[in-house]
Amino acid sequence: MTWHPEGLLRTWGVLDFAGGTVVHMSAGCAALAGALFLGRRIQQEETPANIPFVILGTGLLWFGWFGFNAGSAFSAGTDAVLAFANTNLASATAMITWIFFDRYRDRKMSAVGACIGAVVGLVAITPAAGFVSLGDSLLIGFIASLISNVCIDLFHNSGRVDDTLDVFASHGVGGMVGMVMTGVFAAEIGLTSGETETFVKHLVALAGAAVGAFGLSYGLFALVNALIPMRVTEHQEKRGLDDSQHGEKMG
Amino acid sequence: MTWHPEGLLRTWGVLDFAGGTVVHMSAGCAALAGALFLGRRIQQEETPANIPFVILGTGLLWFGWFGFNAGSAFSAGTDAVLAFANTNLASATAMITWIFFDRYRDRKMSAVGACIGAVVGLVAITPAAGFVSLGDSLLIGFIASLISNVCIDLFHNSGRVDDTLDVFASHGVGGMVGMVMTGVFAAEIGLTSGETETFVKHLVALAGAAVGAFGLSYGLFALVNALIPMRVTEHQEKRGLDDSQHGEKMG
Amino acid sequence: MTWHPEGLLRTWGVLDFAGGTVVHMSAGCAALAGALFLGRRIQQEETPANIPFVILGTGLLWFGWFGFNAGSAFSAGTDAVLAFANTNLASATAMITWIFFDRYRDRKMSAVGACIGAVVGLVAITPAAGFVSLGDSLLIGFIASLISNVCIDLFHNSGRVDDTLDVFASHGVGGMVGMVMTGVFAAEIGLTSGETETFVKHLVALAGAAVGAFGLSYGLFALVNALIPMRVTEHQEKRGLDDSQHGEKMG
Repeated sequence: MTWHPEGLLRTWGVLDFAGGTVVHMSAGCAALAGALFLGRRIQQEETPANIPFVILGTGLLWFGWFGFNAGSAFSAGTDAVLAFANTNLASATAMITWIFFDRYRDRKMSAVGACIGAVVGLVAITPAAGFVSLGDSLLIGFIASLISNVCIDLFHNSGRVDDTLDVFASHGVGGMVGMVMTGVFAAEIGLTSGETETFVKHLVALAGAAVGAFGLSYGLFALVNALIPMRVTEHQEKRGLDDSQHGEKMG
Repeated sequence: MTWHPEGLLRTWGVLDFAGGTVVHMSAGCAALAGALFLGRRIQQEETPANIPFVILGTGLLWFGWFGFNAGSAFSAGTDAVLAFANTNLASATAMITWIFFDRYRDRKMSAVGACIGAVVGLVAITPAAGFVSLGDSLLIGFIASLISNVCIDLFHNSGRVDDTLDVFASHGVGGMVGMVMTGVFAAEIGLTSGETETFVKHLVALAGAAVGAFGLSYGLFALVNALIPMRVTEHQEKRGLDDSQHGEKMG
Repeated sequence: MTWHPEGLLRTWGVLDFAGGTVVHMSAGCAALAGALFLGRRIQQEETPANIPFVILGTGLLWFGWFGFNAGSAFSAGTDAVLAFANTNLASATAMITWIFFDRYRDRKMSAVGACIGAVVGLVAITPAAGFVSLGDSLLIGFIASLISNVCIDLFHNSGRVDDTLDVFASHGVGGMVGMVMTGVFAAEIGLTSGETETFVKHLVALAGAAVGAFGLSYGLFALVNALIPMRVTEHQEKRGLDDSQHGEKMG
C-alpha cells in the first residue's frame, strides 16, 4: 500500500490507520504557520458567527468521519467495524469530557464546547482507529479532550496567535495526542504490550512531521504571498470577506 | 437475541422490530411525565424558533431512520430492504396525510405540519417495519397521522400540558398507534391473519409500557429534582436558557 | 428492465445511466414551461434568501447523488464504483470551472456560483455515470459548467424568463450537455469510439424529450390553471408565500 499518503511512514513502522498524522496533525501545524504568518485579525470576534451551524457542521462531520475511518480498512469486515465503533466512542467520550471539564473549571457547559470536544475525539482516534480496543478509545478520547481544552486556553490567554477556528489546538494537538496514544495502545506492539520500538518511532515521527509541516507550510505561505499578497486590505477586512471578496452576505 | 432492549417483551410474544415501543412510545410517555412535572413555560411561543432548521432536522432524521429501522434486521437482505421501504412509505404517507388533513380542517398546509407528520409516520412504522407489507405501511402512516394530528389539537386546546415539541403526541401517540397496528397487520400472526393472541398481547404491553414509562419517569424526575432542582429561576427563564445556562445565543 | 422509467428510450438504443434525461433534462424543460406560463414575479430578488442554506443544500444533494448514480448500477460492484467516482469528479470539476470562469469574466468567485456549478456537474454526469472513464467525467463537468454558466447569463440578460432557481440553465442545459456527452464518450459505442449511431440517437432523443417535456408540461399547467388558478394574488405575493400560503415565516 505504498500509494497511500502515509505509505512512507508506515514502511518505517509508524501506525496511522486513517491519516491522523498526515491529515490532521499536519493540517494543525500548517494552520499554526498560517495564523502566525498572516497575523491577527483587526477585530477579533469572541464567539462563532452562528452556533446552530457549528452544531450542524459537527454532526455532519461526525457522520462523515465514519466513512473516513471505517473506510480506511479498505474492506467491509471486522477491522472496519472496530474502526467505526472506536471512532464513535472516542468522539462521544471527548465531547462529554470537554463539557464536564469546562464545568469543573467553573465555566458553562456550552454547545460550542461540546462540538470542539467531539472533533478533538475524532481527530485523536483517527490514527488508532483500527489498532486499539474499545476501552482504549475511551481513554484516548478522554485524554485528548483534556489536553486540547487546556491548550486552547493557553493559546487564547497568550494572545499571540489568532487561530480563528482553534485548528491547531483541536487538529494539531488532538492529532499529536492521537499519535502518541497509538504508540501506547496499539495491539501487540504498543507500550501497553510491553514493546517500546513503535512508541519511540511515533515520537520521532511526531516531531519530524510537526516540524516539517510547520516549516514547509510557512515557506509556502511566504512564497505565495510574494507572488499574490494573501492578506486583504484593512478596508476589505472591515467590510468583511464575504462581501469584499465574494460579493455575498450571510443570510 | 435477549440482549436486545426489547428482548423481554419479545420473549413474551410482543413484536417490536426496531424499538417503536421501547424507544418512542416510552420516550413519549416519559416526556409527558416531564412536561407535567416541570409545568408550563412562563412565556409560551406559538411557533418554532427557526422553521428552516425544523425542516432540515426532519430530513436528517428521516435519513438516519433508515439506518435505525433497516439496521434492526441485523444483516443486509430482504428483511432490511422491506424495513427500509416500509419506513419511507409510512413516513411519506403520514406527511402527506397531515398536510391534507390540515387543509380539510380549514388550516393552511404548513412546513412544520409536514415535518411533524413525517416524524409520526417514522415512529408508527418502527415496531412494524419488518413485519408488514408495503401496503400495510401506507395504512399505518395514514392512521397514525390522523390520530396524532387530532391529539395535538386536544393537547393544545386543553392548555394543561406544555409539551414544547409535541413529543407525546408524535412519539407517544405515534408509538402507541404503531404498536396496535403491528398487532393488526403483522404477517401470519396479526389480526388480519385471523390471529388474536399477538394483538391482545400488544394491547397489554402497550398499557404496561405506557404506565410504567410514565410512572417511573415521573418518579425519577421527582428524585432528581429533590437532589438538583431542575427548573431554572424565573429570571433565567426570561433571559432564555441558551444565554443563562450555556452563555451562548442562537445565531 | 422495461419497468425502469427510461426503459423505452433504452430499448431504442439511448443510454441514460441514472436518469439524466428522464429526470433532469425533462425537469429543466418543464420548469421553463412553468416559468413562461406563470410569468415573472412582481419583485425579483437578485440574490438567494439564505446563502448558508444554499451551500448546505448543495452538500446534502451532492452526498445523496452518490446513492442516486451509484445505486443505478443496481448492485454493489465495479459499475457502482465507477459511477460513484465519475459523479464526484464531474461535480468537483464543474464547481471549480464555474468559479474560475466567473473570475475570468471579471466577476467575484462566489459560494452560490460554486454551488450551481457543482449541481450542473452532477446533472451532466448522471446519464453517463456508468458508461464513461474517469478522464471523460472531467471533460463532461468542464464543458457542462462553461455552457450552463453562459446560458444563465443569456437568460438573465434577456429578462424574459423569471426562472427563480435557474432550473432550466442548470438541470435543463446541464441535462442536454450530459446527454450529448454520453453519446460522445460512451465506451465502445460513443463518437470517440468511432461509432455514430448512438450519438445520432441521442440527438434525436434530446430533441424529442425536450419538446415533449416542454409541451406536455405547458399543457398540464394550462389545464391545472383552468381548474385551480395557480398564481397567487398580487397582495399575497407581496406578503410572501410563506406567510400568505402557509402561515409561516422563515426563521
